[in-house]
Amino acid sequence: MPVKNQKWIYNSTFSGAPKPSDFKFVEDQLPEVGENEVHFKAVAISVDPYMRVLGSVIPPGGVMFGAQVAKVVKSRNPKWKVGDAAVGYFGWQTNWVGVPEDIQSPFGGIEEPYEVPQVVSNVTHALGAAGLTGNSAYFGMMELCCPKPGETVVVSGAAGAVGSLAGQIAKIQGARVIGFAGSDAKVDWLVSECGFDKAFNYKKISVVEALKTAAPKGVDCYFDNVGGQMTADVISCMNSYGRVAVCGSIANYNADRSKPVLVPDYHLNVIIKQIKMEGFLAQRWLGPKWIQGIHQLAEWINQGKIVPRETVTNGFLNIPSAFIAMLKGDNIGKAVVTV
Amino acid sequence: MPVKNQKWIYNSTFSGAPKPSDFKFVEDQLPEVGENEVHFKAVAISVDPYMRVLGSVIPPGGVMFGAQVAKVVKSRNPKWKVGDAAVGYFGWQTNWVGVPEDIQSPFGGIEEPYEVPQVVSNVTHALGAAGLTGNSAYFGMMELCCPKPGETVVVSGAAGAVGSLAGQIAKIQGARVIGFAGSDAKVDWLVSECGFDKAFNYKKISVVEALKTAAPKGVDCYFDNVGGQMTADVISCMNSYGRVAVCGSIANYNADRSKPVLVPDYHLNVIIKQIKMEGFLAQRWLGPKWIQGIHQLAEWINQGKIVPRETVTNGFLNIPSAFIAMLKGDNIGKAVVTV
Repeated sequence: MPVKNQKWIYNSTFSGAPKPSDFKFVEDQLPEVGENEVHFKAVAISVDPYMRVLGSVIPPGGVMFGAQVAKVVKSRNPKWKVGDAAVGYFGWQTNWVGVPEDIQSPFGGIEEPYEVPQVVSNVTHALGAAGLTGNSAYFGMMELCCPKPGETVVVSGAAGAVGSLAGQIAKIQGARVIGFAGSDAKVDWLVSECGFDKAFNYKKISVVEALKTAAPKGVDCYFDNVGGQMTADVISCMNSYGRVAVCGSIANYNADRSKPVLVPDYHLNVIIKQIKMEGFLAQRWLGPKWIQGIHQLAEWINQGKIVPRETVTNGFLNIPSAFIAMLKGDNIGKAVVTV
Repeated sequence: MPVKNQKWIYNSTFSGAPKPSDFKFVEDQLPEVGENEVHFKAVAISVDPYMRVLGSVIPPGGVMFGAQVAKVVKSRNPKWKVGDAAVGYFGWQTNWVGVPEDIQSPFGGIEEPYEVPQVVSNVTHALGAAGLTGNSAYFGMMELCCPKPGETVVVSGAAGAVGSLAGQIAKIQGARVIGFAGSDAKVDWLVSECGFDKAFNYKKISVVEALKTAAPKGVDCYFDNVGGQMTADVISCMNSYGRVAVCGSIANYNADRSKPVLVPDYHLNVIIKQIKMEGFLAQRWLGPKWIQGIHQLAEWINQGKIVPRETVTNGFLNIPSAFIAMLKGDNIGKAVVTV
């Protein structure tokens, strides 16, 4: 009996804040499973800020891109057996049939699914704190910021999926961690549960004012999810040889890029303070290092050293609204949709 | 008989383009040479863009800061003997008496003078292509840009003292080099004498347009002397894992910083292309590496592999006007004043 498949089509290029009509819901029949093919059934689907960014670059028309945790329900491929749980770029659809070795990453190139490691305690964590999100925080902090014990680390977008983990990872390294987020509830959560030393609602206090008292010895590392004014302000408070991991640019994701978007200049501070800034996509570390990262994160979760908070939405039909709410900052921690 | 000393006092904090009245000419008597002290007599004095930058940070009042080549005319210090030529931060004055081990660098900390290495063929080169300027180009290119043979390197402010050397050093590394400068005469000089593959007058062609044809495979390294629009434009043409050495910010040196200076945002490109940007002051490499850099540069000059062009102004009284002209871009290559 043919299987019915539900899909969200990426229908029109995002302009400003994404809206429901940018997506179109369709149903069709799944094909038979051919030689070397696997049938994966969605368990949980990730909604992430990078989708807003790539949405202005990737042409619309196909199934909306994105990662899932999915279970194998049929396999004619020697690498996969029924019941395996995989993380892969199956997109916003309830089922996927094809050759796993041929899957295109939205970041370019082939990216084969990988099995959820046994150490991951909860399947949604494989998309969050012990998955793509966790590794973004892990590699950005460990490979680019490289905080030393006693140094001061600032995280912006700190209550977001990546930011909250980045700060907790810096704490594990022995750094003093200061977070900026957009609501009092988020700020409270960062201090009371994530162990940040200080957190501020940037809507209520200027970043420079906050750092004058919270970082009297200056800022050594900045995990940057935001860009714009926030980046200029944090850099103005950095010490010589400060390191900036540039992970996100949420201040200007929805900016109209048909004309130049203007931001405060921090170029001169980069020179005088000899600051190193590096943009990154976690995919850079795919391969054996990737799985090492996930094992380390899963171990920290299991030891209670990091809090893998998730905002879970139920129901495949709710993916677009979960995505739009996440971009508005309605979530705390990782936003994920269970199917 | 007491020696008369001439000095230029740094008289008022620069606001906008520096003007002659920001400096005050005074004469006084040199003190006697005390124990451990040396009397250095100025031979050539450097005028550099960094002076504009530090001028907004350092309080006015004293002798204007800056490096000289100077000869020892009297010494009561075992390290120095009459006739030695030194490079040191003696400032804008014709004579200096003091303990060389105590000299403050305008960049902070103590910076002892060093003897002009024997391999340097011309004393003014010790301030330029085989000195502070040369090492800025050398370390920025070799340690931060790290061009590989066949890669494409862009240099802005390319006909300036540092830029023209940075491009020539990249050529020696086997890279393809594209320069941007502000006049046709500078552009001609970069191609005909400095061996740049392409050079453009940015006042006549947009940077993005120029790079579309001149860098069809994209830009791998950017030696950035300029900032602002130029930086955003070059970064938009860069390849993944591009490297930016941030050396100068001449587009906005004279900007009124009492309000935020706005520039086009390139933050998102830094992420998507995973670009590494690093600001630097050449002083980072002081010590044995510094002298190695100068020896390498002197060797390249002596082999005719780099063209150490200088714009030389004669006369101590002309330092302020030489400095102001250099900031306007009137010079080609290193601006220096002989005393």
